[in-house]
Amino acid sequence: MAKDRTIPAGRRHQREVHHANLSDLLRRIHLGGPISRTAAGEQMRLNRSTVMALTAELTKAGLVDEDLPTGTGRMGRPSLVIRPTSDRVHVLAFDVAVDRLVAARVGLGGVVQDRRSAPRQRAGVDLESVVDALVGFGRDLLAGAPKDSICVGVGASYCGMIRPGDGLVRFGPDLGWVDQAFGQEMSRRLDIGLPVIVGNEAHLGARAEHERGAGVGFRNVIYLHGDVGVGGGIIVGDRLLDGDNGYACELGHMVVNPYNGRPCGCGSAGCLEAEVGERALLEAAQRPDSVGREAVRDTVAAAAAGDEQARRALDEIGDWLGIGVVNLINLFNPAVVIFGGMLRDVYPGAAAQVQARVARNVLPVSRERVRLCVSALGDDTTLIGAAELAFTDLLNSPIETLQKLTEHAKE
Amino acid sequence: MAKDRTIPAGRRHQREVHHANLSDLLRRIHLGGPISRTAAGEQMRLNRSTVMALTAELTKAGLVDEDLPTGTGRMGRPSLVIRPTSDRVHVLAFDVAVDRLVAARVGLGGVVQDRRSAPRQRAGVDLESVVDALVGFGRDLLAGAPKDSICVGVGASYCGMIRPGDGLVRFGPDLGWVDQAFGQEMSRRLDIGLPVIVGNEAHLGARAEHERGAGVGFRNVIYLHGDVGVGGGIIVGDRLLDGDNGYACELGHMVVNPYNGRPCGCGSAGCLEAEVGERALLEAAQRPDSVGREAVRDTVAAAAAGDEQARRALDEIGDWLGIGVVNLINLFNPAVVIFGGMLRDVYPGAAAQVQARVARNVLPVSRERVRLCVSALGDDTTLIGAAELAFTDLLNSPIETLQKLTEHAKE
Repeated sequence: MAKDRTIPAGRRHQREVHHANLSDLLRRIHLGGPISRTAAGEQMRLNRSTVMALTAELTKAGLVDEDLPTGTGRMGRPSLVIRPTSDRVHVLAFDVAVDRLVAARVGLGGVVQDRRSAPRQRAGVDLESVVDALVGFGRDLLAGAPKDSICVGVGASYCGMIRPGDGLVRFGPDLGWVDQAFGQEMSRRLDIGLPVIVGNEAHLGARAEHERGAGVGFRNVIYLHGDVGVGGGIIVGDRLLDGDNGYACELGHMVVNPYNGRPCGCGSAGCLEAEVGERALLEAAQRPDSVGREAVRDTVAAAAAGDEQARRALDEIGDWLGIGVVNLINLFNPAVVIFGGMLRDVYPGAAAQVQARVARNVLPVSRERVRLCVSALGDDTTLIGAAELAFTDLLNSPIETLQKLTEHAKE
Repeated sequence: MAKDRTIPAGRRHQREVHHANLSDLLRRIHLGGPISRTAAGEQMRLNRSTVMALTAELTKAGLVDEDLPTGTGRMGRPSLVIRPTSDRVHVLAFDVAVDRLVAARVGLGGVVQDRRSAPRQRAGVDLESVVDALVGFGRDLLAGAPKDSICVGVGASYCGMIRPGDGLVRFGPDLGWVDQAFGQEMSRRLDIGLPVIVGNEAHLGARAEHERGAGVGFRNVIYLHGDVGVGGGIIVGDRLLDGDNGYACELGHMVVNPYNGRPCGCGSAGCLEAEVGERALLEAAQRPDSVGREAVRDTVAAAAAGDEQARRALDEIGDWLGIGVVNLINLFNPAVVIFGGMLRDVYPGAAAQVQARVARNVLPVSRERVRLCVSALGDDTTLIGAAELAFTDLLNSPIETLQKLTEHAKE
């Protein structure tokens, strides 16, 4: 709604449009890769001179370069191609996953320039030791960054429930964390003048798959992320479902087995994550002493090789997973359901059960077009999601963000 | 994104802002009731003269009146109050509910000016006889409308799955309808130059409760509508969840009882609607021969009066309903869950079971603030939702819509 201000509405409007166009062009290049001036003009419905002016501004800021395309095979003067400048800016992305700590320096276009990682103990790890390790990685990655390269944001993915706004870990079942100021502590210790923005791993995984993976081009996407538990990120009309306080998407705590359910880490029983998580699978496969991603992969491989116990375990897990997927499809009518994390390994071995449930229990109208698949970004899904979170400010206001950071560096 | 056009961007922008402000002001008065000029200006962040100009334009179109408030008790010159003109425009709203057909003429402000209704047989009713009855009601209501009053839209609520766009009934389990052109047939037969826009009853109920009922002021609302089955309307960020093809919100087909479920009308088993619908309740209460809303009310009353069988039936239904509600809260983190239709009668008798499930199985962060209640609009929820659907064009473009209809009437 219009507000009375001193700048005339017309000029204010032009400035806003210009600002939005700069943001839109950089985002297209960041997410879609190099693009010709002509294609950018067509997609953004802008004329030649406007695209030229926008590109000039982004080039001056050092964010993009232009060059001639190689071998288009088309007649006439080829349109210049705009591509991200490889080393002008980067972000730091951290991933506190259930069995490892990862850090990466990521450039425009989602290019991982460098990375560090270490295995992580499953339990008894306190905030300080996690922050210690990650901050060490972060400093190392920054020290190796090209001279004159600017860090424009820091994002972190965490395997637990995060309070929106300040990166407080409300509940990290796996590490036993309750109300730990992870984001604030990371920002304080890293001390580079940037806040560390924290997101839930499944939310960030959904975002990454939607923007760069198996969900590209779809407006409604369900992402299920398995580790010890099962988290979810649900994209509704191109936006992550957040709910009234930011705690939506807890699909791992749908009750799928209300009367004979396995106890769940949340205090309830029969939750999807209790029935299809790592523990359920390994116990059903009579491998109760094994643990971790490798043990899950071994079980899936054994089932494929004819191990009957492993086969039965996957069938059982697959049926519960199928019930969860059925409910999600009937509720959300999504274009695609994506399995990531540990479920990326489990799904191929349980696809028959999941699909049977979908065939039997999903309404035909929603079943007709839905696709089920594994994550396209592999084990980097959550890390890339954290990087995208870190790029938010730059993509929203490219010039202003760079100016602010350059001034800050001079002080 | 900006497009190159011949009108200067600044003037185009001003026109768009004016258009949006007219729509916004009329919508506020329609949904919120009479409002003083001062309050409208504050809420819309517009200055005095702009509000005056907008009001003058709506007054000239005959949509609103202004008068002095009665007895504000405040000092100084009172601000004029803008209120909808009672009989300049109206819509027709139809409701094909499971046991009755209803039609109403509804004015601005959601005022039901007149209505007709008839009981409906449960089965074996074909498209023609439903359309016959409704069109008869419609003509009758139009004939009784004040002279010079204009019908600005027609909406219909239907107890089945509707294809977005053309009002085709994809699946009407209750009447056994499959792919029936209900919307087109209603438009053709009513023949007043307006399309009959059809919506699913639970979607429309959700919209009505969100705009005028128990969901007012909340951005995330779950509405469960019971009749023979259970439908749903889920408001996410103030918008109805639609999904990729418009078939989201099928919460009645969440599988809550995967292994011993009652058969469901959809061909599946253990769906929420199979476990908590009218049939499940009446059979559990050992009243298998009774049917309809009165029988449901009798059962709830009997349980309250100490009938043990009825009490057990409600406990059982309440537990299944609770499981469904748990899943919805964990997935959507809503502010409020509203029970409508037949569930408006059932919920008070089953609230203890539902709340026990919520306490046991919902994550604390989502449980902390969610409210459970029955629909505030009673049995008119779906009818009012149909009326709101019919008001869509007028509220989006008040002046243009009236002009178009006035010219049409002259031809």
